[in-house]
Amino acid sequence: MKVFTSDNAAGIHPEVLAAITRANQGRAVAYGDDEHTARATALVRAQFGVEAEVLLVWGGTAANVIGLACVTAPYEAILCAETAHLAVDECAAPERFVGGKLVTLPVVHGKVTPAAVRGALRGVGVVHAVQPRVLSIAQPTEVGTVYTLAELGALAALCREHDLLLHVDGARLANAAAHLGVSLGAATTAVGVDLLSFGGTKSGLLGAEAVVLGERAHARGARFHRKQGMHLASKMRFLAAQIEALLTDELWLRVARHANAMARRLADGVHALPHVELVHPVETNAVFARLPARTVAALHDDGYRFLVWEPDPARPVVRWMTAFDTTDDDVDGFVAAITAAPR
Amino acid sequence: MKVFTSDNAAGIHPEVLAAITRANQGRAVAYGDDEHTARATALVRAQFGVEAEVLLVWGGTAANVIGLACVTAPYEAILCAETAHLAVDECAAPERFVGGKLVTLPVVHGKVTPAAVRGALRGVGVVHAVQPRVLSIAQPTEVGTVYTLAELGALAALCREHDLLLHVDGARLANAAAHLGVSLGAATTAVGVDLLSFGGTKSGLLGAEAVVLGERAHARGARFHRKQGMHLASKMRFLAAQIEALLTDELWLRVARHANAMARRLADGVHALPHVELVHPVETNAVFARLPARTVAALHDDGYRFLVWEPDPARPVVRWMTAFDTTDDDVDGFVAAITAAPR
Amino acid sequence: MKVFTSDNAAGIHPEVLAAITRANQGRAVAYGDDEHTARATALVRAQFGVEAEVLLVWGGTAANVIGLACVTAPYEAILCAETAHLAVDECAAPERFVGGKLVTLPVVHGKVTPAAVRGALRGVGVVHAVQPRVLSIAQPTEVGTVYTLAELGALAALCREHDLLLHVDGARLANAAAHLGVSLGAATTAVGVDLLSFGGTKSGLLGAEAVVLGERAHARGARFHRKQGMHLASKMRFLAAQIEALLTDELWLRVARHANAMARRLADGVHALPHVELVHPVETNAVFARLPARTVAALHDDGYRFLVWEPDPARPVVRWMTAFDTTDDDVDGFVAAITAAPR
Amino acid sequence: MKVFTSDNAAGIHPEVLAAITRANQGRAVAYGDDEHTARATALVRAQFGVEAEVLLVWGGTAANVIGLACVTAPYEAILCAETAHLAVDECAAPERFVGGKLVTLPVVHGKVTPAAVRGALRGVGVVHAVQPRVLSIAQPTEVGTVYTLAELGALAALCREHDLLLHVDGARLANAAAHLGVSLGAATTAVGVDLLSFGGTKSGLLGAEAVVLGERAHARGARFHRKQGMHLASKMRFLAAQIEALLTDELWLRVARHANAMARRLADGVHALPHVELVHPVETNAVFARLPARTVAALHDDGYRFLVWEPDPARPVVRWMTAFDTTDDDVDGFVAAITAAPR
Repeated sequence: MKVFTSDNAAGIHPEVLAAITRANQGRAVAYGDDEHTARATALVRAQFGVEAEVLLVWGGTAANVIGLACVTAPYEAILCAETAHLAVDECAAPERFVGGKLVTLPVVHGKVTPAAVRGALRGVGVVHAVQPRVLSIAQPTEVGTVYTLAELGALAALCREHDLLLHVDGARLANAAAHLGVSLGAATTAVGVDLLSFGGTKSGLLGAEAVVLGERAHARGARFHRKQGMHLASKMRFLAAQIEALLTDELWLRVARHANAMARRLADGVHALPHVELVHPVETNAVFARLPARTVAALHDDGYRFLVWEPDPARPVVRWMTAFDTTDDDVDGFVAAITAAPR
Repeated sequence: MKVFTSDNAAGIHPEVLAAITRANQGRAVAYGDDEHTARATALVRAQFGVEAEVLLVWGGTAANVIGLACVTAPYEAILCAETAHLAVDECAAPERFVGGKLVTLPVVHGKVTPAAVRGALRGVGVVHAVQPRVLSIAQPTEVGTVYTLAELGALAALCREHDLLLHVDGARLANAAAHLGVSLGAATTAVGVDLLSFGGTKSGLLGAEAVVLGERAHARGARFHRKQGMHLASKMRFLAAQIEALLTDELWLRVARHANAMARRLADGVHALPHVELVHPVETNAVFARLPARTVAALHDDGYRFLVWEPDPARPVVRWMTAFDTTDDDVDGFVAAITAAPR
Repeated sequence: MKVFTSDNAAGIHPEVLAAITRANQGRAVAYGDDEHTARATALVRAQFGVEAEVLLVWGGTAANVIGLACVTAPYEAILCAETAHLAVDECAAPERFVGGKLVTLPVVHGKVTPAAVRGALRGVGVVHAVQPRVLSIAQPTEVGTVYTLAELGALAALCREHDLLLHVDGARLANAAAHLGVSLGAATTAVGVDLLSFGGTKSGLLGAEAVVLGERAHARGARFHRKQGMHLASKMRFLAAQIEALLTDELWLRVARHANAMARRLADGVHALPHVELVHPVETNAVFARLPARTVAALHDDGYRFLVWEPDPARPVVRWMTAFDTTDDDVDGFVAAITAAPR
Repeated sequence: MKVFTSDNAAGIHPEVLAAITRANQGRAVAYGDDEHTARATALVRAQFGVEAEVLLVWGGTAANVIGLACVTAPYEAILCAETAHLAVDECAAPERFVGGKLVTLPVVHGKVTPAAVRGALRGVGVVHAVQPRVLSIAQPTEVGTVYTLAELGALAALCREHDLLLHVDGARLANAAAHLGVSLGAATTAVGVDLLSFGGTKSGLLGAEAVVLGERAHARGARFHRKQGMHLASKMRFLAAQIEALLTDELWLRVARHANAMARRLADGVHALPHVELVHPVETNAVFARLPARTVAALHDDGYRFLVWEPDPARPVVRWMTAFDTTDDDVDGFVAAITAAPR
């Protein structure tokens, strides 16, 4: 398999498809009043904290936007990385559904810093300015790096100090928790995250994500925002079955560890090559590398598929992603191809 | 099986689950640039007209709202039945995403009439009034009745006369086409429907619907509205596989005919009962009946599940729905229970 | 003067223009941090209650919509009369700025009843339905009638019972208070109104209205909604000067009493005419009459200007409005013309 | 007079107040169907081009946002300077009313360059990205500098090449045209500006601005956007009278020349002072200067009022603005105070 484009190019994990098949017995009340949804919700709550409100949705855009809509007024600002998926890859879906403004912050290896957040806390109380309400970070970041627990704690403390909520875009949260070696809750709610998206699609689900709203993210209107956000699934049991599978026998952890290990194997295989420069620490399931344009062209010609992250006529940066279905052979073949490609 | 609540209480049709399973081979480019999506889109176009723009989405709310967003400015009005799902069951999702106003029309057995449409064409050109832009009808209606081709043609002609677009909420379009004995396109685009939702979930899909935009529904921004509407699925191939299955070997027609026949069997079984009054013609897969409250209570006690459509202390109206998985035995048992219940 | 179209066809009251001229001395800090605004705000607070938040805006649409935006989430419903200006004359401005849905109620002489409100309290807690949040009434109504204090109290009690807020569109509140013989506050906040628009334009201002938000209308974001609603005036002192003039020496009351008296004089002058039927009680400054179409045509030919409220080929209903600048002679001439017109 | 805060701290120009007073005769049809509005509209059209659609509104936020709403879909982007009033001082009003995203560009002395625009033309046709639709520039810029006609022409050509519309925030357009020594139309529509706000408030009006939409800014829905934007004034004649006054006997030019000359006098008076650094060319009615914090403090203590534009503990940048009512003595006194202040 020569596709390293994204982890969402992978299909459905066999355990998840089996769970969907098992859930396809008889009839179930629609819109989530079924036992599958009750079980999945309970499992998510057990991961993230008993007080959390949990909403299942189909996709990641919705998980982030609906979650943020629950806590943000149209005159408020969401602070996020200038590289945030939310800011650059969602076609202004947040602005359309939530209103308000995304205020973007500079990053270091994809991470925002407390200093950057402080620098954006301008105009508080000034009627001409959007009012900072949420700091949204991605864990792992869009470049695959992981905030340490200390870094998360520092951001959470800063948020509380300034009456901000801390949101995590956890489209690949499993990969971050696997890297940190802690539970999903320990990586988020336990260190002060107020609301988050817990992604499943990139971990082998067909399409299911959970919005998790903690105590400070007053969730009074949450179920209505999901409905208006057009993500109240009628056959909810099949979203629930996927989430349940992901949280059964730690499938999330097994998948994440494997994908992370494949990226590690790829990084280890190429890091000594003189024409390949790894541009970010490889901590989850993505490898970002700068390499000659002719190497990129040769790999594309060879049938390999991956994104050019930063186009450049001489030395572009590319992204290689692994998933639950990436094999040692896939990686080793790719390493061999990169090694052999013209430089 | 004693659940007659809704056709979305049914699960996944075996042919559909098989198609999902078959599509789960190897990797596929995300967001719809894959061969499954190409095939499903081509099949939908073949049904509805070669010029149509086709968008796959996860659910029915999105299919209607995103389709309407493609053609409606925020100062325009969507005319629809006062009983329209769009107006009463979507928690103002249309208003939130599209803006504008739903102007509701009186109905006869769920259908709007040309006279009712004409009565609502007020304020055209007046800056204080929303401007009529779309007539949205459900085919079949929310009470299971079906507009005849002549009725559709008359509404379409009226729409063209007044520069309105004709939209069809086709969450159960298959059931209507099966009743009319015509193809999906013959029931819609061929008689002047400009844009529509082609529903799949209620026909046995896990969750997939298609927005179909004809020539007059200028679809320049359609793909962006879907993205902002948070319904651009990353693993699109699995939506496509469902739609493809639905349009293969006329599964849509087999499912619809069966469900319609089951409702017919149920209606035939109870229509002579003195305590049961059928309140709408039974043309698709729903039976609406008025019966004594004590009969309703007895059936509920007996484990039967169905909606009370119009609450009333003496003689409420209830809705009984059938689906692809309803059997002769299910219906016959229900008829026997209704017959035997206290009156 | 033969214009009886609307009270907003009148110009600026001399005392108001004098106040604007007086305020045009030297420089003033923009956006409301000036002494004129401080004084006007204090005067409004003194009328309606010391805890109220007060926002000055230019026009009536903004006063209603911005006020409602302060208290309504996008999944919530605003209940209002089916004849409400908010519902039929604002081109969906509320839906565009606030989101949500206007749920319209039947009226008796323009007034909603507690029974009608109760009938609309459906779907509470149901995720498919908009959630009732505000009851918005116009005082006086769009047909010039006035809720009694008892009627207001009953609606306010009903609102509190069902956790609704009571909003008053007071574009002509002065006329209602004059009719009731009570102060502006006694007619509103004192009987349980939670938020309101206090109109000035129809009372002789150039263009200024006040949004008044009481204790239950938690006004945390009010100033930001006004800014986003594009009604934070830079030269606020001139709005403030108008409001100050209106509340000085009871100008509001003098203007309202005069306009009401002129409508009374007009109604008294025509009520005995056999071809004129008064269709609503004349309680403020509007007279609604049904009369032969040929009479209407003859009056129009004679140069009289007024609205045809309910078109009808035989006997339309028309609206005649008076204002601060209507004179006895204007009215008497009009009565004579109506009396003499062909029937 | 010691207030140099902003030109909107000035009051109403005597000729404008006289025009309002003259317009206050008799009754006028509301909402703009009056002769004053017809005359004002014709005058604006004569300035900017006979095909233009003209909308009068109360304020500058509305003039920009409503104009942009006429041409921008919610998935489109408005490119503007990172320092644009639209982006930093409107509390996300554009995002709330228009949707979409403001994409901000780097500036040189407040001006965007063709290179900066080209750099932002990414993601065209990509469904994950907002689609560039409008380039919005301020003329003069927020720092008082003026695009030359050649610079405007180059931006206009670039816009046409890439199917963008060119919008001008002309809150102080008169000052720019006065600096360029050309007519209002020659400074905008004649060099390829597609739509613009023509500001009046900062030129001595009480509160009135015009939205001007040229041929490429298809204005089909313009009047409805104004209504929904809550800026359809009922007593429109008084907005019209102000605009008419501004365009009579070139009041706009007289006011602009005077204000510009006062800023020039101020700049000339301080530019040789060693503790004062002028940070932008002084081309209109604003002077931006960096000076010691203790000098700023001393001037504030002395009763002078002005904005600190860029706070800095040592050497902040301040803004001094002049207006139609600034006198030679005001400026000379201020120069003397600056000269004498501690350094």
